Amino acid sequence: MSQGKVKAGAETVRILGIDPGSRATGYGVIDQQGNGLTFVTCGVIRTSEKKPFPERLEEIYNGIGEVIGAYKPQLVGVEDIFTAINPRSALKLGHARGVLILAARQHGLLLEEYSPTVVKQAVAGYGQAPKEQVQQMVRVLLKLVASPSHDAADALAVAICRASHSRNLLR
Amino acid sequence: MSQGKVKAGAETVRILGIDPGSRATGYGVIDQQGNGLTFVTCGVIRTSEKKPFPERLEEIYNGIGEVIGAYKPQLVGVEDIFTAINPRSALKLGHARGVLILAARQHGLLLEEYSPTVVKQAVAGYGQAPKEQVQQMVRVLLKLVASPSHDAADALAVAICRASHSRNLLR
Repeated sequence: MSQGKVKAGAETVRILGIDPGSRATGYGVIDQQGNGLTFVTCGVIRTSEKKPFPERLEEIYNGIGEVIGAYKPQLVGVEDIFTAINPRSALKLGHARGVLILAARQHGLLLEEYSPTVVKQAVAGYGQAPKEQVQQMVRVLLKLVASPSHDAADALAVAICRASHSRNLLR
Repeated sequence: MSQGKVKAGAETVRILGIDPGSRATGYGVIDQQGNGLTFVTCGVIRTSEKKPFPERLEEIYNGIGEVIGAYKPQLVGVEDIFTAINPRSALKLGHARGVLILAARQHGLLLEEYSPTVVKQAVAGYGQAPKEQVQQMVRVLLKLVASPSHDAADALAVAICRASHSRNLLR
C-alpha cells in the first residue's frame, strides 16, 4: 500500500493518527522510512446523531477496528483535547476516545497522546500555527495533490506528529 | 443464582446497575419478579493509576464483560454524572463510560442512563436524598445483612432505579 521507495536499511513503520469525535472521527495512515513520510490513506468515521449513543460508540469502535485490520499500523497517535470545552462536551468526547483507545490497545498498537499544541509544533514548527497552515503543511509533507477533509487532515497531522516523536525516540 | 421465590406468572428480569469511574467502577446485579427485587451480586472493578490508561480501559471493558458473561443480565442502567465536575474529570470519566456502554451494547443489553437525582428519587423517594439514606434504602430494599462498599451500593441503587423504570414501562 506504500508508494514510497524502499531505502536500504530504512525499515518502514506504519502509523495511524486519530482525531476523535463523537460525530466525526478522522483517521490518517502514513508510512515512515527514515526521514521520509508516505501517505497511505485517510478518512472520516461519521455517526448519525439520530441513532442511540451506544450504537454510535459501537460504530466508532468497529470503524477504527476495520481501519486497523485493513492497514495494520504499528504505532498510533491520538489527539488529546480538553481545554476550552465544557464538561458535557468533554464527557461525550471522552466516550469516543475511550472506545478508540480500547480498539488500539486490543490490536496491540503503541499509543501516544498529543495535545493540539504539540501536533502543530511537529507539523508546522509552531505550536500556535493556524489550522489552515497546519493543513497546508500536511499536504506538502505528504505530497498530496488534493486537500483531505478537515477531520482527515487533522488525523494525518497527528500521524505526522507520532512519526516525528518515534523518530526522536529511535535516535 | 436468584434466591427469590418464583411467583406464578411473574417473569424474572435480571438487571445490571453500573456506577462508572476510571479508578473504581461499581456494579450490582439484581433480579426483578413483579414488584419483588432480589440481590444477586455486587462488586467493584478497580484499576491501578500506575498502569497506562489504555490498559486500564481494557481492564474496565474486560471486567464488565466478565460480569455480564457470568450473570447474563437483560437490562442495564448506567449512572450519568456530568454536573459539578471539571472538563478534565469529565473527559476521563467519559472514557470509562464509553467502554462500559460499548460492552453492554455488544452483549445486547437494553441500556438506560439515569442522573443521580433520578436514581435517588427511585430508591429513596426524594431526588436530593443524602448518600447515606440511599445506601440504607438499598440495604432495606434488597434485604442485605451487610453494607456493600460505597461504589457497589451506588451501582445497586442504579439497578433498582432501572428496575423501577422497567416496571413503569410494563404497566
